Amino acid sequence: MTPGGALSTDFYELTMMAGYYAAGISSSATFELYVRDLPPRRSFLIAAGLEQALAYLEGLHFDAADIAYVRGLPNLERVPAAFFDDYLPRFRFTGEVWAVEEGTPVFPPEPLLRITAPMPEAQLVETALLAHIGFQTSVASRTARVIEAAAGRPVVDFGARRAHGLDAGLLAARAAFLAGCDATSNVDASRRFGIPVSGTMAHSWVMTFPDEMTAFRAYIEVFGEDTVLLIDTYDTEQAARAIAASGLKPRAVRLDSGDLIAVSRRVRAILDAGGLRGTAIFVSSDLHEDRIAEMVAANAPIDGFGVGGALSTVSDAPALGAIYKLVEIERGGVNVPIMKLSPGKQSYPGRKQVWRRVELGIASGDTIDLDNRPGPDGAQPLLERVMADGRRTRVTPPLAELRARGRTRIAELPAAVRSVRDAAPYPVRLGAGVRETIDRLTHGRAAPSPL
Amino acid sequence: MTPGGALSTDFYELTMMAGYYAAGISSSATFELYVRDLPPRRSFLIAAGLEQALAYLEGLHFDAADIAYVRGLPNLERVPAAFFDDYLPRFRFTGEVWAVEEGTPVFPPEPLLRITAPMPEAQLVETALLAHIGFQTSVASRTARVIEAAAGRPVVDFGARRAHGLDAGLLAARAAFLAGCDATSNVDASRRFGIPVSGTMAHSWVMTFPDEMTAFRAYIEVFGEDTVLLIDTYDTEQAARAIAASGLKPRAVRLDSGDLIAVSRRVRAILDAGGLRGTAIFVSSDLHEDRIAEMVAANAPIDGFGVGGALSTVSDAPALGAIYKLVEIERGGVNVPIMKLSPGKQSYPGRKQVWRRVELGIASGDTIDLDNRPGPDGAQPLLERVMADGRRTRVTPPLAELRARGRTRIAELPAAVRSVRDAAPYPVRLGAGVRETIDRLTHGRAAPSPL
Repeated sequence: MTPGGALSTDFYELTMMAGYYAAGISSSATFELYVRDLPPRRSFLIAAGLEQALAYLEGLHFDAADIAYVRGLPNLERVPAAFFDDYLPRFRFTGEVWAVEEGTPVFPPEPLLRITAPMPEAQLVETALLAHIGFQTSVASRTARVIEAAAGRPVVDFGARRAHGLDAGLLAARAAFLAGCDATSNVDASRRFGIPVSGTMAHSWVMTFPDEMTAFRAYIEVFGEDTVLLIDTYDTEQAARAIAASGLKPRAVRLDSGDLIAVSRRVRAILDAGGLRGTAIFVSSDLHEDRIAEMVAANAPIDGFGVGGALSTVSDAPALGAIYKLVEIERGGVNVPIMKLSPGKQSYPGRKQVWRRVELGIASGDTIDLDNRPGPDGAQPLLERVMADGRRTRVTPPLAELRARGRTRIAELPAAVRSVRDAAPYPVRLGAGVRETIDRLTHGRAAPSPL
Repeated sequence: MTPGGALSTDFYELTMMAGYYAAGISSSATFELYVRDLPPRRSFLIAAGLEQALAYLEGLHFDAADIAYVRGLPNLERVPAAFFDDYLPRFRFTGEVWAVEEGTPVFPPEPLLRITAPMPEAQLVETALLAHIGFQTSVASRTARVIEAAAGRPVVDFGARRAHGLDAGLLAARAAFLAGCDATSNVDASRRFGIPVSGTMAHSWVMTFPDEMTAFRAYIEVFGEDTVLLIDTYDTEQAARAIAASGLKPRAVRLDSGDLIAVSRRVRAILDAGGLRGTAIFVSSDLHEDRIAEMVAANAPIDGFGVGGALSTVSDAPALGAIYKLVEIERGGVNVPIMKLSPGKQSYPGRKQVWRRVELGIASGDTIDLDNRPGPDGAQPLLERVMADGRRTRVTPPLAELRARGRTRIAELPAAVRSVRDAAPYPVRLGAGVRETIDRLTHGRAAPSPL
């Protein structure tokens, strides 16, 4: 479908942009993208999607067809013609972007991204930034839980078929690898992002041949024994016995149905008795962190997991509540902090930085404060400048490097915070600069949820 | 990201294709795409995504870069060079496709799509077909519930920012309109699919101006009074009073926070008292069918709903369990029905048709039977041929026409089946042809879940 152009946005972003133009407003504005609350059962998030967000910002422009379409939209008759004739054709994103590196654990309401740009530009990009950052952050955050549950056993992303379209499957594969998956079944993702590719066989392969062993032999004939045979099409244990008796030594077998703990034990025993101690057992079938944790806790003889929709659709929390809020605006040459007071939806005013203190290798807490305030002693800032004047200020590190750095940062979280079940909360506080600004703007009336 | 090429697939589809090639298997095979069980709280599904699936099939090919990449993938060293040199460069999808029209209500385990093609072709397309049909069917099915709950009030898709990337937002807007939404906020979707576009304003517009009324006046200055003012940035009732006192007559106001039933009543009273009986009240804020049903049941003075992530992420059931199963294969010139017996995951053998009986305008039940069996008296077949020799056999009707036809078919479902809460099940039975085939293949041992 190749979306991602200037029209990949909500209509109100365009009308507001036209409104700002008509009203002569091009003041510098700062927006921050953050998550208001952790989704249920999450104790942390993993920032992701920055690379696609920056590519979108760099490429943003209106071509002639875009402009012709916008001109004909309802309610725009009174917009000055110069908006269509001069402004849109020359439109580029010229702002500055600060962001948390992809792969880094973050916590609400820490900004993942902060944009300072002329108001019309900063407004237009809201929808696409939320979609880019929100989705990948959501997938990466779920993945980190699945990886934690797997306790060192490899996890492969199998999510392409369940994803919300092919593009979502591609981006999910990226985010899942970033957050710790070992491989993906998605060939396009493997090519684009350099993710190791992995695959087994489908039931249809087995069903195509007159009998199961003929199907297995035919596969090994082509691909050799360094392959994975799917053994649950008809009768799993019978298939395991047949393989053990056949002389074939496949690298692994895959189980995709039934009680995986019980079946894996019986299959392990059959394989071991048949001299196939080196043949691993790989499982799939609607897996998620709880089922994986259960198998690990039961010491099931399972060597790896294929996880699909749990990752690619973030099945337990598919709509991350990421928001993009105006926090500061230039008025008469002065930057004024701004906040929204809607019930339950207050925002945090001012341009902010997040500081993380890591002591003896363990993160002990974060502080969100105005970016012109010093951080707490020894704390490190999480937001770094990644774009200036609408151009990236650095070469994005390779995905495998982001993954490695991210895994290190996840390992810095206290084990209780990383826990898949009943995780401990991680301390995040508002610094004095933000608190004083809120007090000043609300006269103490309407502080956002206490931190 | 422009995925959708031949590599937008799971690795095992490619290895199996190579395996079939190496094993000299190009028998004709029939696969059916269906949903095994209804997601929780669903009583029917709405078929969607066929158009994108057919476009994918028609465009399918391997370019030189694709082939070079595949050639270098692990485990493919033993695949005959002719696979890469002759077969892949000439590869096209040459199969026949039967499908249920988009917008039509369907029920598990009715096939939404049936493909007959040489085995390697039919296999390759599994992942992409599941992603295309699964996602849009999922969105359309949720949307139908939201539309039912709204009881005639307009519903606008606001889901772009929550969607799983921009492409998912685009496809979600299409599926949501197909299933009954009145408009979308997504400009790209409006352009591509001819969906009416709709938009209001964001809180940031209000916050950009020194005070709220200045912001409202500036908007109406540009866009006229046929517009929607967002009134909950600071104090909703105060904003309503200020508008009523201002002499402005906006088409509508939008509420995006708080107790929408209570607030809409107070705002309605303020607007009415101020002579703004013609100003509608439009609401948004994490809406879904239950909250909408509650507002409708309470007779809240709400004239329309903006719904976001509930539609675009299918938040309550984001991973539709669609599957693509081999049901028949040619062996020695004879078409042999096939079934899988994995515990809890049995498939239904044979090439099938779905028959729906509609009596006095009400659908009374469906029958799934082999496509060479006659349908029940007076029943209509749901699957029609949409592709032959890899080319579409018809011009796809415009989306608005599919929507209208679909709405008619949804209206044919018994009201109890359409109900948002505690819906009645709809009768779907297996015809004699399928039942006899299952008995024959299992010797009565392992029938799939009874129907």
